Amino acid sequence: MAKVLTTKEENYSQWYNDLVAKADLAESSAVRGCMVIKPYGYAIWEKMQAQLDKMFKETGHVNAYFPLFIPKSFFSKEAAHVEGFAKECAVVTHYRLMNDPNGKGVVVDPDAKLEEELIIRPTSETIIWSTYKNWIQSYRDLPILCNQWANVVRWEMRTRMFLRTTEFLWQEGHTAHETSQEALAETDQMINVYASFAEDFMAMPVIKGAKSANERFAGAIETYTIEALMQDGKALQSGTSHFLGQNFAKAFDVQFANRDGKLDYVWATSWGASTRLIGALIMAHSDNNGLVLPPKLAPYQVVIIPIYKNMEQLAEITVKVNEIIAKLKARGISVKYDNRDTQRPGWKFAEYELKGVPVRLAIGPRDLENGSIEVARRDTLEKSTEKLENIDQVVEDLLDAIQKNIYDKAFKFRAENTTKVDSYDEFKELLNTKGGFFLAHWDGTTETEIKIKEETKATIRCIPFDAPDEEGVCMVTGKPSHRRVIFALAY
Amino acid sequence: MAKVLTTKEENYSQWYNDLVAKADLAESSAVRGCMVIKPYGYAIWEKMQAQLDKMFKETGHVNAYFPLFIPKSFFSKEAAHVEGFAKECAVVTHYRLMNDPNGKGVVVDPDAKLEEELIIRPTSETIIWSTYKNWIQSYRDLPILCNQWANVVRWEMRTRMFLRTTEFLWQEGHTAHETSQEALAETDQMINVYASFAEDFMAMPVIKGAKSANERFAGAIETYTIEALMQDGKALQSGTSHFLGQNFAKAFDVQFANRDGKLDYVWATSWGASTRLIGALIMAHSDNNGLVLPPKLAPYQVVIIPIYKNMEQLAEITVKVNEIIAKLKARGISVKYDNRDTQRPGWKFAEYELKGVPVRLAIGPRDLENGSIEVARRDTLEKSTEKLENIDQVVEDLLDAIQKNIYDKAFKFRAENTTKVDSYDEFKELLNTKGGFFLAHWDGTTETEIKIKEETKATIRCIPFDAPDEEGVCMVTGKPSHRRVIFALAY
Repeated sequence: MAKVLTTKEENYSQWYNDLVAKADLAESSAVRGCMVIKPYGYAIWEKMQAQLDKMFKETGHVNAYFPLFIPKSFFSKEAAHVEGFAKECAVVTHYRLMNDPNGKGVVVDPDAKLEEELIIRPTSETIIWSTYKNWIQSYRDLPILCNQWANVVRWEMRTRMFLRTTEFLWQEGHTAHETSQEALAETDQMINVYASFAEDFMAMPVIKGAKSANERFAGAIETYTIEALMQDGKALQSGTSHFLGQNFAKAFDVQFANRDGKLDYVWATSWGASTRLIGALIMAHSDNNGLVLPPKLAPYQVVIIPIYKNMEQLAEITVKVNEIIAKLKARGISVKYDNRDTQRPGWKFAEYELKGVPVRLAIGPRDLENGSIEVARRDTLEKSTEKLENIDQVVEDLLDAIQKNIYDKAFKFRAENTTKVDSYDEFKELLNTKGGFFLAHWDGTTETEIKIKEETKATIRCIPFDAPDEEGVCMVTGKPSHRRVIFALAY
Repeated sequence: MAKVLTTKEENYSQWYNDLVAKADLAESSAVRGCMVIKPYGYAIWEKMQAQLDKMFKETGHVNAYFPLFIPKSFFSKEAAHVEGFAKECAVVTHYRLMNDPNGKGVVVDPDAKLEEELIIRPTSETIIWSTYKNWIQSYRDLPILCNQWANVVRWEMRTRMFLRTTEFLWQEGHTAHETSQEALAETDQMINVYASFAEDFMAMPVIKGAKSANERFAGAIETYTIEALMQDGKALQSGTSHFLGQNFAKAFDVQFANRDGKLDYVWATSWGASTRLIGALIMAHSDNNGLVLPPKLAPYQVVIIPIYKNMEQLAEITVKVNEIIAKLKARGISVKYDNRDTQRPGWKFAEYELKGVPVRLAIGPRDLENGSIEVARRDTLEKSTEKLENIDQVVEDLLDAIQKNIYDKAFKFRAENTTKVDSYDEFKELLNTKGGFFLAHWDGTTETEIKIKEETKATIRCIPFDAPDEEGVCMVTGKPSHRRVIFALAY
C-alpha cells in the first residue's frame, strides 16, 4: 500500500502534520492560528479529561467556571504577570455590529465602544483572585480547591496543531491556602498528579523538576514541570504547577483572619495541562504507519474487521462478532465493529493502523470453521491467530501488554537519548547531532542560561527533583555547581 | 431559624436571586453580565452535561471543537442569521496590548489592529458550515452528527443569573444530512431527547411543539422547542432543535454528490441547551426554604449529620456512618458526611435544606442504641425514624419517590395553570392575574402575534405537536383557526 505519511526520517515536522491530518485529529480553521479539533482527536481529549478530572476530584478539588473576559486593568495589578501575559492577546473593544451604511455586510458600530477593553483570558489568575476576594474572610474559608475546564487565547505568531495554537482547551486549577507550606504541598501534589497521568495513562515517561527563574510562570515564585522527550530529541513541557506565594493575594488584596486572629495574605497555587498533551501523545509514540495510542486513552481499544465474499458470509460472521463484542464490553473494553460494505478489508486495515487502534481483530469464514481469529497489535505490528473461545482474556492481556510496551519503549528511548556532558563544545555538538536531554552543570544564573539559549536555542527544561548532589563546574562559566540540570531543545 | 430568603409570594424575582446567592450556585463577576458559576452550581451543570452527553452519544453523535472566533464576514453570508445574531456581540479588533506611554498600566496597541474583526461566537452555524464544506464531497460523507460543548457570548442588555447572561455555557449540535426527511427526523429526535432529559432527569414536565415563524431561530425553516412552566406562571424555553433546510449549505456552498451522482446542497439541523436549564431547575421546584433538587441531578443525594455531645460520641457515630456510606455507595447513591465540628446540627440542617439535598439522615447516640436513624426528605420536609439495618433500601426507594413526587407536583401545577381562553379580554385579564399557559386560537399571522405581544407582552410559546384539531376563531381577529396554540409570558 502507498505510504500516506511523510516518514519521520525524511521530515519529522511534516510527518507530524501529515499524521494530524490523515488520522483525522484536527485541521486548520478559517481563523488564523485556531484549529478545529475533529471528532477522533476530540475523543482522545475526552478520555484525557475524564481521567484528569477523576484524579483532581480524588485529591479534593471541585470544578467551577469563571468569565472568559478579563477587564484590561486587572492585568496591570500583578507586575510580573502583565509582562508575561497581557501583551499578545485578543482584545474586545466593541459590543455591537451594524449594517454597513454602504450596504456591504456588517461593520463595527462605532457608538458601541466599551469603556474598558476586555481581554480574552490567556490564563485566569486575575479574574479568579478578584473573585476569591469575596469568598475568603477567615482561615475557615480555606483552602479553596477549584479547577476550571476552559478555552484560553494567546495570540501566537507561529502556531502548530495542538502544540501551540491561538485558542486552546485546558484545565486550570487555582487554589488558596492558609500557609506557605500548605500551598507548596499542593503545588507538589499536582505535579505528581500530572506525572502519574503522563506515565500511567499516556505511557509517556516524564522528568519532574523545578523551572529556573527565567522559565517560571509570570507571577510565580516556583514553577514545577513535567518534561517529556519526543522522538526527534526535543523536549515537550507537558504540565506545570505553580507556587504563586502571596503575589496574587497582594495584587487583589485578598486577606484573611488567621488562627491568631491577625490579617494575612492568602497563599496561592495554579496548575494546568492542555490539548498540547495530544501533541505530546502523538510525538512520543507514533511511527511511520500512523498513530500509536496507549490503550488507556484510545477512543476505541479494539476494532473488528470482517473478511467475507458475500452477504451470507457477513451475516454469519456478524453473529459471532456480536458475541465477541459482548464479551469484550463485559470486561470494560471499547470496541468498534467496522462492517461497512463500501470499503475493502485492506483499506480498513490501513485506516485503523493510521488511527492507532491498539488491537485489530479480523475474522473470516475459515476462522468460523476453525474457531479462530486473527489478532494484530498496533505497537509492534505483530499478528497471531488465537482461539475464539477465550479471545476476551487474550485481548485484555494484550491491551495491558501494549500499554506497558509503549511506555517501556519510550523509557528506553529517553535513556538512550539522555547524555551527561561536561564541556560546552561537546554540548553544542551533540545538541544538533544526537539531540535529547543533556545533564549538565550550570552556575545557576539567568545570565548564563540566556547566553546558552541565544547561542544554541537550548533551554533549561528543569532542575530535576531527583538530581543527586554532585559537585562540578558550569560548562559555560566554570563557576561551581552542585547538581546537574536538564538542557534540551524544546517545543 | 431566621428565614434567609425573600419568599416567593413577597417577591418572586428577589426570591430567585436570593436563592442563587445563598445556595452558592453563582454570583456576579467583575465583568458586566457575566457570572461566576460556583462549585455547587457547576456540580449541577456537570450532572446535566454527563446525562445529556450520554443521550447524544446513544443517538449516534460525537463531540468536536470549533473556534471561539468567527470572522465578521461569515455573518453576512446567511441573511436571516445576521439579523438575529450579528448585532449584539463581542468584537475583537486588536491582538496586542502595550505599556501605556504615560505609565498607567497597559493600553491597546494601535498597530495591532486585525484586518478583519473577529466575533466571539454567539452560536456556531457559520464557522461550522465553513468547516463542513471541506468534510463533505459525496453522500458517503453523510450524515455528520457533531456536538460541541462550549461557551458562547451574546451581548445582553438585561441579564439574570443562569437565565440570560452575556457569556453562557451550552452544547450545540450541528448535523448534516442527505435529505430533507432525514434532517427533519433528526430535528424531531433531538427535541425528544431534550424532552426526555427535562422530564426524566429534571423532573420538569414540558410541552413539545413548533415555534411560530416570528419566534424561530434566525436562519431556521422550523424551530422545535420544549416549554416549561415556572412557579410564577411564566414560561421558560428549555431547549430548541432547528431544521435549517439548505440555508447554511447555500450560504457556505456545501454541495455533495448524491446517490444519482448529481450535486445537491446538504440539509442541516442544529440544537442546543444551556446553563439556562439550571435557572429552570431552580424555578420549577424550589420553595421558600431553598432549593429542591431532583435526586437524579443533585450533586450529592444524601447528607448525613451526626448529633453528638463529645468526641467519643462522634467517633462511635462515625463508625456506624461509614458502614451506611459503604452500603449507599454500593447502590450508586452519592453521600456527603458532614462531621465538621465548627457548625451545630441545626445550622447544618438549614444549610442542606437551602442547598436542596434530597435526603438528610441524622444519627445520634440514642439512634445507635435503638438501631435507628432519622430520615428527612427535602421535597415534603417530612421526617421519619427508620431502622438502620435496611436504611440503604429505604433511601433508594425514597430517592425514587422524591424524583417522582417533584415531577408530579410540577405536572399538577402546570395542569392547574393551563387555561383555555376564547376571548382576548379574558386572555388579557387572566394573563396578569392567574398567569400560566393559555390555550387559544390564533389566525396564524405574524401580524396578530406581534399585536398581542405589543399589547400584553405574551408570546406564542409553541404550537404543540399534540394539539388536537379543533375548529375555532382567532381570539383577536376572529379569523378561522384549526388548533389552539400556547401563549404565555416568558423568561
